[in-house]
Order: sequence, then structure tokens, then C-alpha cells
Amino acid sequence: MFHHSSKLQYTVKVDTPDPQFAKLLQQAIGGVEGEIRVAMQYFFQAMGARGDDKYRDMLMMTATEELSHIEFLGHAVALNLEGAPVTAKEEAAKDPLVNAILGGMNPRHLLSSGLSAMPVNANGVPFDMSHVYATGNLAADMMANAMAEGSGRVLASRLYNATEDAGMKDMLSFLIARDTMHQQQWLAVIEELGGMQATLPIPNSTPENHEATEHSYYFLNTSLDRPTPQGRWTSGPSLDGRSQFSVKDKPEPEGQVPSLGKARPNSGAQKEQM
Amino acid sequence: MFHHSSKLQYTVKVDTPDPQFAKLLQQAIGGVEGEIRVAMQYFFQAMGARGDDKYRDMLMMTATEELSHIEFLGHAVALNLEGAPVTAKEEAAKDPLVNAILGGMNPRHLLSSGLSAMPVNANGVPFDMSHVYATGNLAADMMANAMAEGSGRVLASRLYNATEDAGMKDMLSFLIARDTMHQQQWLAVIEELGGMQATLPIPNSTPENHEATEHSYYFLNTSLDRPTPQGRWTSGPSLDGRSQFSVKDKPEPEGQVPSLGKARPNSGAQKEQM
Amino acid sequence: MFHHSSKLQYTVKVDTPDPQFAKLLQQAIGGVEGEIRVAMQYFFQAMGARGDDKYRDMLMMTATEELSHIEFLGHAVALNLEGAPVTAKEEAAKDPLVNAILGGMNPRHLLSSGLSAMPVNANGVPFDMSHVYATGNLAADMMANAMAEGSGRVLASRLYNATEDAGMKDMLSFLIARDTMHQQQWLAVIEELGGMQATLPIPNSTPENHEATEHSYYFLNTSLDRPTPQGRWTSGPSLDGRSQFSVKDKPEPEGQVPSLGKARPNSGAQKEQM
Amino acid sequence: MFHHSSKLQYTVKVDTPDPQFAKLLQQAIGGVEGEIRVAMQYFFQAMGARGDDKYRDMLMMTATEELSHIEFLGHAVALNLEGAPVTAKEEAAKDPLVNAILGGMNPRHLLSSGLSAMPVNANGVPFDMSHVYATGNLAADMMANAMAEGSGRVLASRLYNATEDAGMKDMLSFLIARDTMHQQQWLAVIEELGGMQATLPIPNSTPENHEATEHSYYFLNTSLDRPTPQGRWTSGPSLDGRSQFSVKDKPEPEGQVPSLGKARPNSGAQKEQM
Amino acid sequence: MFHHSSKLQYTVKVDTPDPQFAKLLQQAIGGVEGEIRVAMQYFFQAMGARGDDKYRDMLMMTATEELSHIEFLGHAVALNLEGAPVTAKEEAAKDPLVNAILGGMNPRHLLSSGLSAMPVNANGVPFDMSHVYATGNLAADMMANAMAEGSGRVLASRLYNATEDAGMKDMLSFLIARDTMHQQQWLAVIEELGGMQATLPIPNSTPENHEATEHSYYFLNTSLDRPTPQGRWTSGPSLDGRSQFSVKDKPEPEGQVPSLGKARPNSGAQKEQM
Amino acid sequence: MFHHSSKLQYTVKVDTPDPQFAKLLQQAIGGVEGEIRVAMQYFFQAMGARGDDKYRDMLMMTATEELSHIEFLGHAVALNLEGAPVTAKEEAAKDPLVNAILGGMNPRHLLSSGLSAMPVNANGVPFDMSHVYATGNLAADMMANAMAEGSGRVLASRLYNATEDAGMKDMLSFLIARDTMHQQQWLAVIEELGGMQATLPIPNSTPENHEATEHSYYFLNTSLDRPTPQGRWTSGPSLDGRSQFSVKDKPEPEGQVPSLGKARPNSGAQKEQM
Repeated sequence: MFHHSSKLQYTVKVDTPDPQFAKLLQQAIGGVEGEIRVAMQYFFQAMGARGDDKYRDMLMMTATEELSHIEFLGHAVALNLEGAPVTAKEEAAKDPLVNAILGGMNPRHLLSSGLSAMPVNANGVPFDMSHVYATGNLAADMMANAMAEGSGRVLASRLYNATEDAGMKDMLSFLIARDTMHQQQWLAVIEELGGMQATLPIPNSTPENHEATEHSYYFLNTSLDRPTPQGRWTSGPSLDGRSQFSVKDKPEPEGQVPSLGKARPNSGAQKEQM
Repeated sequence: MFHHSSKLQYTVKVDTPDPQFAKLLQQAIGGVEGEIRVAMQYFFQAMGARGDDKYRDMLMMTATEELSHIEFLGHAVALNLEGAPVTAKEEAAKDPLVNAILGGMNPRHLLSSGLSAMPVNANGVPFDMSHVYATGNLAADMMANAMAEGSGRVLASRLYNATEDAGMKDMLSFLIARDTMHQQQWLAVIEELGGMQATLPIPNSTPENHEATEHSYYFLNTSLDRPTPQGRWTSGPSLDGRSQFSVKDKPEPEGQVPSLGKARPNSGAQKEQM
Repeated sequence: MFHHSSKLQYTVKVDTPDPQFAKLLQQAIGGVEGEIRVAMQYFFQAMGARGDDKYRDMLMMTATEELSHIEFLGHAVALNLEGAPVTAKEEAAKDPLVNAILGGMNPRHLLSSGLSAMPVNANGVPFDMSHVYATGNLAADMMANAMAEGSGRVLASRLYNATEDAGMKDMLSFLIARDTMHQQQWLAVIEELGGMQATLPIPNSTPENHEATEHSYYFLNTSLDRPTPQGRWTSGPSLDGRSQFSVKDKPEPEGQVPSLGKARPNSGAQKEQM
Repeated sequence: MFHHSSKLQYTVKVDTPDPQFAKLLQQAIGGVEGEIRVAMQYFFQAMGARGDDKYRDMLMMTATEELSHIEFLGHAVALNLEGAPVTAKEEAAKDPLVNAILGGMNPRHLLSSGLSAMPVNANGVPFDMSHVYATGNLAADMMANAMAEGSGRVLASRLYNATEDAGMKDMLSFLIARDTMHQQQWLAVIEELGGMQATLPIPNSTPENHEATEHSYYFLNTSLDRPTPQGRWTSGPSLDGRSQFSVKDKPEPEGQVPSLGKARPNSGAQKEQM
Repeated sequence: MFHHSSKLQYTVKVDTPDPQFAKLLQQAIGGVEGEIRVAMQYFFQAMGARGDDKYRDMLMMTATEELSHIEFLGHAVALNLEGAPVTAKEEAAKDPLVNAILGGMNPRHLLSSGLSAMPVNANGVPFDMSHVYATGNLAADMMANAMAEGSGRVLASRLYNATEDAGMKDMLSFLIARDTMHQQQWLAVIEELGGMQATLPIPNSTPENHEATEHSYYFLNTSLDRPTPQGRWTSGPSLDGRSQFSVKDKPEPEGQVPSLGKARPNSGAQKEQM
Repeated sequence: MFHHSSKLQYTVKVDTPDPQFAKLLQQAIGGVEGEIRVAMQYFFQAMGARGDDKYRDMLMMTATEELSHIEFLGHAVALNLEGAPVTAKEEAAKDPLVNAILGGMNPRHLLSSGLSAMPVNANGVPFDMSHVYATGNLAADMMANAMAEGSGRVLASRLYNATEDAGMKDMLSFLIARDTMHQQQWLAVIEELGGMQATLPIPNSTPENHEATEHSYYFLNTSLDRPTPQGRWTSGPSLDGRSQFSVKDKPEPEGQVPSLGKARPNSGAQKEQM
């Protein structure tokens, strides 16, 4: 069960409201790199967690934290929209250049939300829940979480660079910090479970006879004119310690030429296809 | 530039066509765990790759392979739909129980595609390209790729279990194998770049003074009644080697109580809000 | 069956074409507060109306009116796009500041629609029909309609403020007026059916023994640190006249700690979860 | 800031797991009538609330409760999926009729989530956040909330009817009860603000000279062959007390025949249009 | 302006209600091949029509007809849902095989719409308005319309085959007939404008010096192992009469190897990319 | 199976990077008129092609070419983003007017992709695969392809006009040329199959007794006040040569007044509907 306390997890101060930055901040709320995504992803993973209950607890605790991130970011968006012009007259009275810049705000902040945050990204595209990745496989989920936090910290760093507002920089430095922890937290689960060697390939419970292992460890060079890029993935032991990496260069197809033959009567095709 | 040869990358045989399994296979084509996603994700990452060109090459080569996976899976869907009833009369002539089972096929395989594959998932929801994760950050992208291949191999393993058809099991064992390689391939890039220690936190180019580092290494226990789940993430050196993990239990909010005050005139609010 | 006459329901005049305002107007066509939504919502409600046929008639009549609103708004968008620059040369010849402002138009008005209206909102996001709310329950549908018209009039008022064009203000004052009527029209159905007391709770046909009525009339204060906000909802008779409002403060969870136990073999989980 | 306690808000018991019912229950989680919607809607409304802070508090408190509803419904889905067949062999061993019925489960519960809840509706369509209605206008938002709870209780009642499982009926009776309260709670705000008379038309702050009031109080009969359906909306005082309802029958268009004239050169039209 | 008369454009009779067929019929309402699409497509094309006003009229007249098609199909869906079980008890009382078949109905017809039509396709995916193709180019739009009606008649034919109900077959034979007319109607516009020779390439107003015409008339064989499929497109005069078709076999790339070089500081990339 | 060579199909040069033009170019990648659409559409049509295998080959060859178009357009987007400001400080140092113009770039090019192409349109809306039209009917698919290429060439012509950059104009002139060929290529299939007369109505395999042919050849004038627009579609032989066009003016509805009667108990309706 969830509870709430009235203060924000972290102080939000905006020195100079900036409606364009409000638009950019939306990416951190409703973008695929944003906080709705991680809050809901950890929440659904927690609800589906099977095995040691400590992972369920861990997921739910951090899901709860991410809800608090949505909350302070939402407040930051609203504060950046303070003072944005709500009438054409008001706008016209201002420096025309300012108007041009305001032309870059999300018009739905004015028309739809009444100068407050929305669950959309920086293009105004609503977040959709297909981005909540929760597979029921602990390792796959940890990877999904590390990915989400990695792209989240990339975003927060770019937002930090995109503003000169001291209050916003302070808030974003907190977000950058928490994304640091969360990246490591999920990867630490993989470490604890034995690292790559024990974890891979995901799922590690697939019986070996379900796998055509002769195809499991070669890098396929599908280029007609480029040499194989050499690296950790082209030779040496595989990360799971079960085999050796190798290379298959300019591969020949191993399958048949596909053909479906004639269309059947009553299947809605043209006569010429039958 | 792309080229094509007429044979499939791998042989596709269906011993007993099964329209319901055709529906399930769609998840491997148009699901978020599927092949359109990885083909397009690696393709867009390659187009945006900056730094050592070998990663661009590697991404494009595997993008090309994934296009070939779409191709043989698409053929598998069509073969599973061979013989599905196209008229009510035809269906009624069969065992009523068979009908009931056929009730479980995707009706759009009949109505919309003429008994062939569609770019949709097992629920018939079309793939949407917001799932193509490509950040311009190499490490974040490698995580996204490992995540995609992890969930892809989970899916392929579940599909393997969901059929008794020898041809389909053979094809899926190939897919399971390639997903094994691809998981490792992307994680091997991270290994090559120095592993977790050098890679984390993503992006590793964020200046330390952009980060409130006092918040970077504690696990936040937001539960009112559960002890902190102990693990690799609660104590010991952080994975990036820069600090020590710790725990913050039952945290107090650090921010203010948010309040936006009165609504402005002409902002479309109710009078009572002004 | 539908019919059409060639004149618009209301005169549309644009004194000074404004491509940026064309973008804003799109919200009234293809936004969730817009006319496609209400036209289709009332249309589908009418098709599913059960009970007294007069509600079906009423819904279909207003659905038909809303189609006419789409039509004149679509014309308004096209007139606002008259004269927008279609070549870079043409644009460069103008005042650079004007260009900057034009930078705020929807580029797809130029690239995709050839300077005319599209079924998208002010961010260019296409309307999707999941916003057509039609439950088969008359009272729930009337609430949905009052909601749509309420947010529609909020939008029309904001658009009215966002333009200085006399023609557009005239057209919007008509839209504001019709939204006034439509709000009241749907709420008047509820009045006619006996008002809140007879209508609530929706659906009023749910047998009382399907409801854990001991939980039906208290306000739940889930905050750890805020007093319950007192009001009409915390004491006094409930709006349906069946009970008294009360408050449950700082509630204890009443359920169990959820746990799903081990993952099953062959379910695609990691070995450690089994 | 959010907090969590480990027990569910309400006990969840499933006597006989039923994978088909799990699919149906998804509508209450990820459907437009479901709990993600209300949780997020109240949360975003709270973040944008201007005026008396007690409404912000009220919204946040109930948002928090709705998060707890997602949680126990998610557990209910997982419990209904216990024992669903994960292999074709397992399935074939059972009564073929049972298989047919299982054909009705959501295949992604097996393939994608590992037998747990997903943020999708009963058709497997992911929830998208465009359904979070938050306008910044208190009355419009209260209508949106009453609408959401009205359709939510309709859904919960239908789900109650659709199961014979005592545990599920008990859980749903709690949900029905809370939806009763929440419907009333939001409408009670409108009562407190003076009821329809003071609240309508929404927004009540639009200056009267922005409205073509001669069009504000007639019902428009757009039918060519049906009499106007008489009711509270065709005569008598308007709900806002400002005027009298009337009827406009078989209305004549008041606007012009629209015509856009020739297409401009370089606009991508056919030559014949220029 | 739109008007309505109370009778349906065509009689709808359902001899034996069939909830599964109701699900299939949804494709003709809310599918990409369905009636909402064509109604809205012709409507938006009409609103953007430039040039001879007779095309605007023609488009609006047929848009209006398509609205009437939505209406009778919506009624057909509701009639097919008559008698579908609304309680588990009711369902259990019936033949278990019937239940299994009913397992194939769209559950949202029960849970969300109260046994009536929805603006969704046969998978329950809502129609989205991005499928309204309206370019402002008359010939491109006519092609889009012929395409829509072509796929629409394919769908109607498949639905005809998928039912044994005489009433439904009668209604569908009407739909098949109207799709015949509408296909021809739009292509007749192209004939009237001079056929392929005058119309192609679309847009025919693009100045020839905007086109690298040396690339305009060869078929590109990108296959490594297949001969060029010979046909009308490989030799002989081009359809626009401006040139001759030819073939380019096993083409060499004409462009450069792309490379983006190093990532810039502060761009959120990893250090190793800079 | 697919292969790749490292050079682009066509040279991409950008003389003056322009982040706003990068946004516009996205329409040609991820718009409905763009290259992802045609690549995937031809690919899925090829996988479902039944009848003469030469059409499958043709489709796959052009699908492969379109993948190469995505690739060079993706490079063009990245080159246009070179030098876009990544920090607020950098931006502030520049001419404020330039900033205003940059306000028109897609912020996600900065925040999400790290200055490279994304699979989205000019509004930042991700491409969704429901736009991949593949019916299994050869003629319907050829129409869909001609439509896609027609709107594609309209878009490329508009983009050509929207830039003054010589390199971009050169690249677009190539795209315009290939769209010329592809339009003709698909229509040439229809010519080869006997032209309109043999092809129409699509599908030409629908038995004539499935069609209410008395409704197949009249134009329906649904306008109350406009004369029928005369043209090739109102008189003379139908395009399929089977009949004569005629006109039905001011049509009377032929169907019944729909009515669904009372709602059933337990169906979630209000009591008053029962």
C-alpha cells in the first residue's frame, strides 16, 4: 500500500521561469528515458517478482522513489511556466524576440494543462505503457532497468547542459546522482548472482538442448565489403564461459527460397494469384 | 547500402500448421522483444554512431542479420496459417472443437493479411518505433541492446516450450542461439571498454561537479515497514569504484511543500481558483 | 443516415492569416478536448443506446452538429495557412523575425497536408479513438459528455484569448456558446433522471450485496503528515442519500503481504528464481 | 514524497485460478476505466492545482489510494495465472475443452510477462497517458474524475458478474465500494462550490462578452425527420440560472460555402489544381 | 453542415446473433480498411481541396455516405451481441462448447461498451487518425482513396465468407457493391484528368529540373542472386510517356562511406567516443 | 537473407547544417509518406505474396532499395545536426535570432538521440507499423504502393522547395527520381494484369452473387443543396466494363430506424434503461 507525505523529495527552485525549458523537462517525466517509465516498470516488475522476496522489496522501494521524482519534476515544469503569456495581447506587449522564443514552448502547456506538467515527452507525445518492460525474468529485468537508468542519466546530463538556471541545475544534479545509484543497484543484482558468467545467457534456465549451440558464439559479418570489426566478441572465451567466440564472414544463407504458391479460393486474392 | 539474396538465413519447416501458434510467433516479429525492434534499433544506432567506426560497422552488420530474422519468422507465420479456414462453411464442416481452438487465432490473419505475417505482436498491436532506443551514448546503447536480446531469448524460449512442432522447435533453437551470441556481443563491448568500472556511471563524461555526489551511492528504503534488503548494493565499493554503497532508511523529504498559489486571470481556470 | 448541405454551420472569417494560430486551432479539431472526439463519442453512444429512444435521438442530433463544427474549424485552419511560405526562398525574402515566428508553425501543415487541416492536436499527435467513451450506461455517458464539453469550453476560451483576430474571436465565441449549451444538455439528462440522488452511484443497478458498503462512504487520508481536507465529502449525507460521509485517517493496510513464491520450470525465469 | 508499506490495501484471494479472468481483470488495471488512469490523473491534477490547497491535498491523497488499487489488482492477475500451462505438452495432457478455454487467455501473459500483470487492457492494448485529463480548471477536472469513477464502477460491476470466484467477488465488492465514494467525492467538490448554478458553464471565468450568448441555450435538432426529444434541456431555466432553454429545429446553415480556390505554385499540388 | 435522418442507409438484419462475428465486423468499422477511415479521409480531403470545386463536392458527398456506413455497421455489431452472456452463471448454464466459442468474443464488448460497437478493429485496437491520408494533391489523394476502397472490398468479401447468416450476407453484399463504385469513382477522376500519362508522376507540377531524371526510369535489382523479374516495368515506354523503362542490375553504391567522427563534449556520449 | 555494403546508395552532402531542416527531413524517414513505411510495406507484402513468384522478387528488391533510402536520409539528418548547440551557454553566445530559429529544431534530436536521426516524423511522432499495408491481394497492394510513392514524391518535392542547400537539393532530386520510378513500377503491374478493366473491382475474385450489383455503379449525391458533380463517374461505361455509371440524387434511406430496446439486467446499465 502507498502513502504520501506533503513535502517533495528534493527542493525545487526556479530562478528564471523558462517555458521552453518546461517543454524540455517533459522528456524527463513522460519520455521513454523518464520517471513515469521507471516508476511503472519497477512497480510491475515487483508485482511479478518470483523467487527471493528481497528483489520484490527492492523493486517496490525504488518504484516508490521514482514516483517522488515525477512529483518534483512536475513541480519544476509548473514553476518554469509561471508568467508565460496567456493572451495574445499580453504577448504582443513584450519584446517580439521574446515572443519568437516563446514560440518554442509546448502550446498544450497553455491550451490543455493550464500551465502545468503533462504526462508527455518533449514533443508532446503521451507516454505509453508498452515501455514498461517486465518479463518475469530477473536478469532480463535488471538489464532493462540498467538501460532505463543509463538513458535517464544521459538525458539528465543533457538537460543540465541545456539550462543556465541555478535552481534547475541543482535539481538536475540530484537526479544525475540518483540515476548513478540506480544504474549500479540493478547491475549489482547481477553481480550478486554471479556476474555475467552465471547470468548469461538470459534466461539461464533454458535447457542446452533447446539451443542450436553451433550458432551461439560466432559473430556474423553480413557486410559485402567490410572486414569484421575485431574485439572482445570475435575471439577468446565467451562471457558465459561456456565456449569461444569466433567469426562467420560473408555467410551463405542456410535456408530455402521461400514460396507460398497459389492463393486459395475465397481468400480475397486476385484471380491471377490463384 | 543493402542487398538481398533469395534464400532464407535458416531453413523454416512447419510439420503441422497451427494458426494459434502463428499468432504467438507474431510476438517475435512485432513485439517489443521481437526482430523488427532489434533490426531498427541497431540500424538507427549505427546511423548515429560517433567515435570508433568499428562499432558502427558492428551495429550495421547485426542490424542486417536481424532483418533476415524477420524474414524467416515471417515465412514461419505464413506456413502456420496454411489451411486455416477461410469460410464459415469450411470451418463448420470440421470438428467443432477444432473450431473452438481456431477461435484463438488472430482474426486479422484472415481478414487483413490474407494468411500471412503482420508487423504486430501476439495481441495484434502494431509495433511502434518509439521502442527503437538509440541515445548516441555507446554504453547506454549497448545496455539497451543487451536488454533487447535478453528479453528476446526469454521469448524464444517460451515459444519453444509452447509448440510441439519439430520444425518450429528447430527454427527456434537457432533463434535462441543467435540471441545468446547477441547478448554477449553487446556486453563484450562494455568489457572491452573497461567493464563496469570504466563504463559507469553512464554517461561517464558527465563532469563530477554536475552531480550531487552525496546522493549517488545510497540505497533509499522508502518502505515504512520493511527492512532494507541487504545485498551487493547496500555496502562495499560501488561498481564504478568511485565510492562505497550505503543505505538511507525511512528517508525524510528534503524539499518544500509545493504550492502554485492562485490561478491567473484569462488562464481558463474557475473563478474560485483565482 | 447522414446528409450534408454545402454551407458551413457558422461563418468563418480570418482577417490576418496566422500559421501559428492554425497549429493551435488543431487542438480543437484533433485534441482530446476537440470536435472529432465529441462527434464520434455521441455517435457511438447513440448506436449503443438502450432504454428510452429519446436519448438515442438526442445523442445522434448533437453528434451531427459536432461534425459541422469539425467542418468550420477545418476551414478556419486552412484560411490561417493562406500565405504561409512554401519555399525557403520565399521565406528568406521576408523579415527574419517573421521567419522565427513561422518556425512555430506545424511543419506538417506544409509537408503533409498542403496547407490544410489535419486530424491531429496542437502537437501534431493524431487523434486516437480510444478517447471515444461509450459505456452503455446512460449516466456514465452523460458524465463523459459533460466532461468533454467542459474541457472543450476551457480550450475554446483559451484559444479566444490567444488570438487578436476579430474573425477568429467571432467564430470562437460561437463555439464557446455551443459548449455552454452542450454541457448543460447532458447534465440536464441527469437532472431529469432524478439528479445525483437517483443517479448515483453509477451504475445504480448494481445490487447492494455486490458492494462492500462499509467502504463506500469514507474519505481515505493516505497522507502521513497532512490533516484531512474538510468539505462536503467528509461529513453530512452522501450525495446519493443512502449514507453519511466519514473519514478514515492514516489507514492501515487490510490485506496480506503479497508473495508469488518460486517461478515454475519452463517459464523463462532465471534458475535462481526457481 | 511517496512511501510504501508492504501489505496490500485489501486482501486478495483467488479460489480457482482462471487465466481468462486474468485477461478480463487487466481492463481494471490498464483500461481507460482502470486504476492507472485514475492514479495518474489525480496525481497530475494535484501537481497542477491552483487555488485552495485543500483540493491539491485531496487529489494527492486519492491518487495515492489508487496506486494501492493497481497493486492489489496486479496481485489478483498473477494469482489467476497460477497454474496456467507453460508448455504445449502440459497443455495437451489436459482436457481438450480446457485447452479451448485457455485459448482465450492473453498469450502475452505467458510470452511476455511470465504469468503476471501488465499495464494493458483486456485486449492487450497498452495504456497510454493521453487519457490523463488534467486541465488546470477545477470543475472540468472534477467532471473528468466523476466520469472516470463512473465508468470504473460500471466496469467493476461487470467484472463482478463475470466471475463465480468468491475471493474475486470479495475484492471486486471493495472496488465497487471505493468507486462509490470516489464518484461522490469529486461531485461533492462541485456541490461545495455552489453546485451546477455556480459552476456552469465551465470555465465560469470566461467573460460573457467572449460568448455569442444568443447561441448558448438552444438545443439544435439536426434531424430531417425526427421531432425534438423533449426534456429538461428544451425548456425551463438553464442549469446555470442565466437563461431559458429553447429549441432550434431543422436549422439553416449560417455560414458561407467554403472554397479555397486555386492551389499555389510550389505547394506540391497537381497542375490541374493551380 | 451535416444533417441526419433516422433510418439506416440499408436494412440490417441478423438472423442468429454471433458475438464472435461482432468482433470480426469491428474491422469494417475501426480497422484501417474500415469506414471511419474513409469517412474521415474524404472529409479532410474535402476540407483541403483546392482547384475545381466539383472535387470538393464529390469528396464531401461520399464522406457523408461513409458516415452512414459506420452507422449501419454499428447497428450490426450490436445486433450480433444480443444475447451474449453477461454473467458467469449464465454462461456456465450453457453448452461448454458454446462457452469456448464465446471465449473468442472481444471481452471489451462486454466490459467496456455494454454490448455495442466500438471504434476499434478486430483486435480491439482503437482506430487512430494518422490513417487519414489527405495530401492536398488531388491525384495522390485519389490513389489513397482507391487503395482504401480496394482493401475495404477485400475485407468485405472476406467477412461475407466468414458468416453463414443471411442477414449479414445481405448487408455485406451491399457494402461490397458500394466499394465497387467507390473504387471506380476515384480512379475515374484520374481518367478524367488524362489518365496515367497526364497524371504521373505525382505531383505532376514538380519542375523537371528538381529531378535527377537519369534515375527516374530504371528498375533496381538489389538481389545478389535473382534475375530481374521482367515485365511492363523493365522495358517499353514509361507510363507517363516521358521515357523508356530500363534495368539496373546488381547496382554499385554511388555514395560515400558515412562517418560522423568524434562525439562533441557535453553531448552526453561516453568519453571513449570523444 | 539481407546483406550490406558500407557505402551509401547515393552521396549525401550538406553545405550548411540546419537543425530545423533536420526536423523536416524526419518526415521522409518516419512519416507516413516516408521510407520506413515503404521498406516495411514491400517487405511484408513480399513475405505474403502468393501467385507468380516474380512479384515477390520485385517487392523484395524494392524493399531492399528502400532500406538504403532510410540509410542515406538518416545520414542527412545527422549532418544537418552538426554544430547544433548542446549547451545553453553555447547557444547564448550566438546571435539571439539564431537562437529563436533553433527554437524550431526537434528538442529530442538534442535530448534523446544525441544529434542523429530518429524513427519519427516531423512532429516527433514515432512511426507505427499499422501503416504497413499488406492485404494478400496483389492489386490492392499495388494501389497501396502507388499511393505511398505518390505521397512520398509530394513530400520530397516540398522538402526540395524548403531548403536552399545545394547538397540537400541534390539528394532530394535523387529521391524524387526514384519515387517517379516506383510509382510507375507498381502501376505497371496493374497494366500488365490487364489494366483497370481486368483488375477492378478489387478483389476481382469475389463471385458476382456476393454483390448487390444494383448498388454497384451509381454515384450517391448525399447533399441537400448541391447538384451532382458531373464527370467520368456519373455516366458512361464503368471502368471495369461491366456496367454503366449512373447517379442517385437525394437518396432516401432504405433501412429501418434502429432501436436496441431495453438494456438487460446485469449489463451495467442504469436502472432507467431496463
